[in-house]
This record gives sequence, C-alpha cells and structure tokens, in this order.
Amino acid sequence: MSWWASDETHDPARTSWVESANGHGVFPVQNLPLGVFSPPTGDARIGAAIGEAILDLRACAAAGLFEPALAAACIEPSLNRLFGLPSVQRKSLRQRISHLLSDPVYRDQLTSHIFTASDCELHLPVRIGDYTDFYVGIHHANNVGRQFRPDNPLLPNYKYVPIGYHGRASSIRPSDVAVRRPSGQRKPAGSDTPVFGPTERLDYELELGIWVSSGNELGEPIAITDAAEHFAGLCLLNDWSARDLQAWEYQPLGPFLAKNFHSTISPWVVTAEALAPFRIAQPARPEDDPRPLPYLHDAADQAHGAFALTLEVHLLTAKMREAGLAPYRLSTGPASSMYWTVHQMLTHHSSNGCNLTPGDLLGTGTISAPTRGGFGSLLEISGGGQTAVKLPSGEVRAFVEDGDEIILTASASAPGAVAIGLGSCRAQVTPAR
Amino acid sequence: MSWWASDETHDPARTSWVESANGHGVFPVQNLPLGVFSPPTGDARIGAAIGEAILDLRACAAAGLFEPALAAACIEPSLNRLFGLPSVQRKSLRQRISHLLSDPVYRDQLTSHIFTASDCELHLPVRIGDYTDFYVGIHHANNVGRQFRPDNPLLPNYKYVPIGYHGRASSIRPSDVAVRRPSGQRKPAGSDTPVFGPTERLDYELELGIWVSSGNELGEPIAITDAAEHFAGLCLLNDWSARDLQAWEYQPLGPFLAKNFHSTISPWVVTAEALAPFRIAQPARPEDDPRPLPYLHDAADQAHGAFALTLEVHLLTAKMREAGLAPYRLSTGPASSMYWTVHQMLTHHSSNGCNLTPGDLLGTGTISAPTRGGFGSLLEISGGGQTAVKLPSGEVRAFVEDGDEIILTASASAPGAVAIGLGSCRAQVTPAR
Repeated sequence: MSWWASDETHDPARTSWVESANGHGVFPVQNLPLGVFSPPTGDARIGAAIGEAILDLRACAAAGLFEPALAAACIEPSLNRLFGLPSVQRKSLRQRISHLLSDPVYRDQLTSHIFTASDCELHLPVRIGDYTDFYVGIHHANNVGRQFRPDNPLLPNYKYVPIGYHGRASSIRPSDVAVRRPSGQRKPAGSDTPVFGPTERLDYELELGIWVSSGNELGEPIAITDAAEHFAGLCLLNDWSARDLQAWEYQPLGPFLAKNFHSTISPWVVTAEALAPFRIAQPARPEDDPRPLPYLHDAADQAHGAFALTLEVHLLTAKMREAGLAPYRLSTGPASSMYWTVHQMLTHHSSNGCNLTPGDLLGTGTISAPTRGGFGSLLEISGGGQTAVKLPSGEVRAFVEDGDEIILTASASAPGAVAIGLGSCRAQVTPAR
Repeated sequence: MSWWASDETHDPARTSWVESANGHGVFPVQNLPLGVFSPPTGDARIGAAIGEAILDLRACAAAGLFEPALAAACIEPSLNRLFGLPSVQRKSLRQRISHLLSDPVYRDQLTSHIFTASDCELHLPVRIGDYTDFYVGIHHANNVGRQFRPDNPLLPNYKYVPIGYHGRASSIRPSDVAVRRPSGQRKPAGSDTPVFGPTERLDYELELGIWVSSGNELGEPIAITDAAEHFAGLCLLNDWSARDLQAWEYQPLGPFLAKNFHSTISPWVVTAEALAPFRIAQPARPEDDPRPLPYLHDAADQAHGAFALTLEVHLLTAKMREAGLAPYRLSTGPASSMYWTVHQMLTHHSSNGCNLTPGDLLGTGTISAPTRGGFGSLLEISGGGQTAVKLPSGEVRAFVEDGDEIILTASASAPGAVAIGLGSCRAQVTPAR
C-alpha cells in the first residue's frame, strides 16, 4: 500500500455532498485546490474548489470552523500567510476542509458559503514576490538549442546546473485576462538594423508553476532533504514569448521584453498534499547522467521527484469560435520530461543563500515530450515557423494570431487514486496597441 | 539662467537651521533625500536627511504640516505610496520640507522631530516590487565583452537595445547589512566537471539605482516624452557578483545565482527634483551612433539625460581597519559613461506593455570610465584576476576577500549649484556558511 493511501483525504471512497465534485475528474474532494475568488456580490477572499463550486474559506474561518492560526491565514485576501505556515498546519487545513466537504452533517451550515464557480471571478492566488523561470524541460532545451546551435544543442552546464533566470512578477495574470500583442525591436532577415513594431512571432510556452510555501533567511540555503517543506503546490503557467524580439535582444544577458509583457497562470493552487499520490520516479534523468552534485542529490527525491501529470495544449481561433468548433489539440505529453525535480530547483535557487519568500513563483520552463505531438511551444511544433499547423477551420498557424485563445490543462492519474487536474490556464490574444 | 535656478529649493543662498546641513556637501538643504528610518526608540517611518540629522516626516504629517494627500503618504512605513503620487505633488512636498527646514520660525516646533542620523537605523526605502538590471555602461560592456569575446566585445544589438534583465528583489538590502560569501557551482580551469563551494571570485559592481515613481498599466507603454513622470530618484547600487559562478551558469539565459545572493543599496532616495541642476548632455552617446529608434528618441532627453555625478569606490580590508588606515580608493569616474538615459531605460522597459509599479528598482549596470582608474568592478581593474591591486596595508586584491568592506559614493556638482551627494552604499563581506 502506498504511504498516501493511509491519508483519509485521498480515500477513493470519499465523496462530497457537493454533488458536482463526485466523478469530477479535476476538482473531486480528493483535490481541494486553494485560490482567491470574488463571489458575484462580494470582495476577494480565499476559497477551495470543489467540483463546479467554491467553498468560501474566509466564511468558514469567521464561523469558527478552523483553529486560530488557520483562521487568521484564511481571512487574508491572498494565500501568502497560509503558505508561510509550517506544512503540518497546511496539512491540517486540508484534512479539515476534506472533512467539512465530505461529511453531510455540515451541508446545511455550509450551503451559504458555497458559490457556483462560473458565477465567480478568480484572482491571482498570492501576491507574487519574485518570479523565477527554470529550463528543466530537456527536450525543449534540445529542440530550441538545435535551432540556435545545430551541432551543440545542449550546453555543457545543462546536466549540472538547473538553469534558471529571473522573470517579471508584476505582469503575471490569472486565466481569462486578455493578452495584448507586444511591440518591440526585431531585426528582419537580411537587414543590418532593427525595426520596432508588433511581434510577428508570438508564441506560448507550456510550463508548470511551482508555488513556494515557507521561505528561507538570506544567507541560509535550503538543504535538498528539507525542500519539501518549501513546496506549496502547482499551477499551469503560459510563459507567452515574442520569438523575434527574443532572438534580437537575448544576448548576452538573457530574455527580457520577449517574455515580461504577460504571463498567464491557472488560478488554483493544487497543493503538494493533493499531488502526493501522483509522485513518480524521474524518467527524464537516468541515474549517473551524470550523478547530481551532492547538494542536489537525494535518493528519496530521485525515487518520487516527478509527477504523473498529462499536459495538453489546445488552440481556439476566432474563426473556430464563431463556427462553434471545439478547441484543437496542439499537443499532449507527460510532465515527467523534466530533467530536474521541484526539490532540486528549490535547493539550487537557495544554494547561494538567495532567500525565497512565501508566494514566490517558479516556472519549470517549457515542458516538451520527445516527439512533435508533445512539443510545448509553436516554435518547436512549427520548426521555427517552417511547418504551419493545419486547423479544422482550414486555417494554419506557425505562431499565435490575434483572437487566438491558448488553453493549457493537466490531469493526474495513478493506480488506486482518484484522478485530479490542475484546472485550465487560458487567455486570448488581442491586437497590438 | 538655468531653469532650475528659479526654483527656490535650489537657491544656493538658502541655509538650514539644522546647522550641520550648511556646507555639508552631501545632504545640504538643497538635497533633501527621502528614506525610511527607525529612531533609537521607535518603529520605522519616512524621513528626510538634512546634514547629520533626519527629519521625521511621519511626525510632520501627524502635526498637520502637510496637505492631506502628502500626509497620507508620509505616514506609511515605506515610500511606495508617495512614489505613486503625481510628480506635482511630490514636488510640493519637496518645497514644503525645504521651507520647514530653512525658515527658523519652525525650529522650536520641529526640534522634537529631528534625530541624529548616527543614532538611527536606516531601512530599505520602499517595498521593491520588481528589480531590473540594465547594462548601459558602455565601457564596462566593452571591457567585459573583451574578456569573453576578444574580437567582438560589443554585440550587434548593444547600440539599439538598452540591454536589461530581471534580477532578484528579495535579496536587496540597505547599507551596512553584511554580505555572506555565496557558494555555488564553478568549473575549475582544465576540469570537465564543476565543483560546489564558496566563490573564489567575489566582486562588486558600481551602479546607480533608479527608483520608479508612478507606474503604467499592463499593455500601456510609457512614451519617452512622458518618462520623467515615472522617475522618482537615484541611489547607489552594489550588484555583488560571483564571477566564477557567473562564467559557468550564465549561458544561455543570463546571470542567476552569481548575482541574486545579495545586492546593496544606499538608503536615501535622492529625488529627480534634487538632481535637476546636475542634468547634462549625454557624452557617452554621440548623436547618430546610430540614431535611436523613434520610440527611444527625445531631443530634450538627449540634451540633459545624463548626470554630472562623480562616482567613487573605496575598499577597507579588515587589516586596514585594525591598523586605523583610511579606505583605499579603487576608482573614480563620471556617471555619464552611460550609453542610455534613465528615460530611455524606463521607456524601453515598458515598450512591450510591461507594467512598472511605484517602488520598482532599475539598476544601470556597472558604470566604468574609459580608463582603469575609473573601472567599476575588480574584474575590470584586475583584468580578470591577472593584475592584483596593491593596497597601503601591503595586501593585494584581485577579488573581494572576507572582511573587506566596499564603499560606493557619488557627488554631484554643477556651476551655480550647491553640491550634493547620494550618501554611501557600503557593506562588509563575511565568510561563507
């Protein structure tokens, strides 16, 4: 029996009196992701998704249903304070919510604290302090590296250093906020000088977002064996990218305006606890390929550092929407194509003493499967714009056009566990200003 | 007569009843920088530096000495709200403080709101949202580029794109917070594999920090002709760097752990208004070298986009401190060796719609003069570690050692104006953990 099976919050037999949760596939009572929402006539507050509904955790706190430390965190307008609590307290909140939503005795008391999700507005779940994007999708690194350096796609540091760089926190938005096509400098082929104007190579990047729970003091690294304490949960992340701006600006200090105009995240934090049944060994990193340096090595992490998540990207163009066509699937693949684990990213990031804070966001970098059907960006799918994708509407796409909506989803499944999902990360592109 | 000479806050004849301010050279009544401090027995609050003293602006606000919008901003524990006000209101605060500190009629009323600066603790002046570091020191770019690419030091984008990248906001500290030597991966010469341990090439970088005042909405760029409205003021910034970590990690996405372990800033914000007399034409960028793209071009900015600031770096080793020796000057040079102006940096950063927010910090990147006496980092002064500096203590330095203190200062002077300074940015290095 898996260790998580003894945790009643994962009991496959557990159902909820919120009937839409049972057999929901994304937000059953075994998931219970956390977020911040506004009901139709109210301000922003913390909630938990349950089927097609949201439980108002601020109202639960006010009703005396949580112990004091949890109640104090749940009345805040963001998850930062809750993330700053020790994991044992965050686990007890999960157990409590699971109990409240599964035991019918609470049904009458909680009915007024349950809202229909489609009536609510979802916000960023935290005030994001710093945002860091990694580059752990090894197939993506190979695919992109091959376009820039055909004979040497993977740089010598890749298998030693979890490569990462800082991104922009202020321009991260939740699902359903429109993305304005950015303008910037690009150098047309054959020209010696750049021009300024709307990007002609707008792309998405399929990533997982990693939420940091408790932080570390400046100068005090996180040991790999302690990293679990600092991992709050996952979301989906679309790292929108302007490839023509990127190609011209990125040397020598890395991507800047090509990336920081907008990033979209799915609004629900699927917690580390909810993901426990879906932890698997790291298939993308063979042992001794090379062996990680000691500060990044932990046998337990190697044994279940990856996630049994299936990722999908869909595209819905304006024409498809008008014609009533369903979104077209651009790719599907496993999230396990990550060369470095969440714990290795957290540990590496703090290994020089850099202080992480509750509510920081780390991106994995684009996650691509080894073959085209699972590539995580149009840059890869279209081979740098060479081979456009044919859509059911008769349209073709080498890059993202105005009016297009990109939809990322992820579902987790494991033997003996009830399947869950991360929800969706979606946004539509509007024309340049 | 210069336009600023009609502004009474710059009147060279104006003196303060705080006598240490008169002839102070750094914080005379013509400067009035803003910061956040704690007096010996009190909590953090906003203040203005005046000579060797600090005026408590929260107390002034509580005493009804400011108009309501300014009073509401001055009772906050950081400058963010004040920075978010229109510049006309920030200017009126400057005029009011100048009046209060120069007219002796206020002496008795304000004496209890004046603290001796050396008794106070200085904090970060703002809650920093996002931190971006630029690379506008063209001689630094040349010097460093030459070490990596002898035949091609300046990349083709340099004279079109104000190159920048995102840095870490959480690890920025004010002066006098010790810097712990970071550990990390480096690849020893001749080795195929990296090792992990304390950096052997710790360096400083001499930069100016640019504080963002009012922000812009996501998707709405700042026009170059509106950029002044978004510039709150300057500080000094030491972008501590671990060169061996940097060399190994920085490709392909830029510096990360080599930089984000600690950055030190001077605690006083010297405002755009205080700097008005010291604006000069941009000597580092000849016109049409090439001409900037239209979105970065503004004749007025070209005419006075630079600052008549002289920068200095001093080193005080533990041995020198014990021997009672004065700090040794490592370099001195003009801040005008910047290829791009503050307004061009603000405009470029937002040109893709990226939203800046009040209290964001932009670094200029290392500012080096054309010759060795004005180089802004030990990497440049020592020629990549080849030529150590000889110190009066008999010691030598190719990079920064434990116990060393690095002190950055800047002074502004202009014909007809009272000289001011930015204060000092200083921190001592402690051994690795």
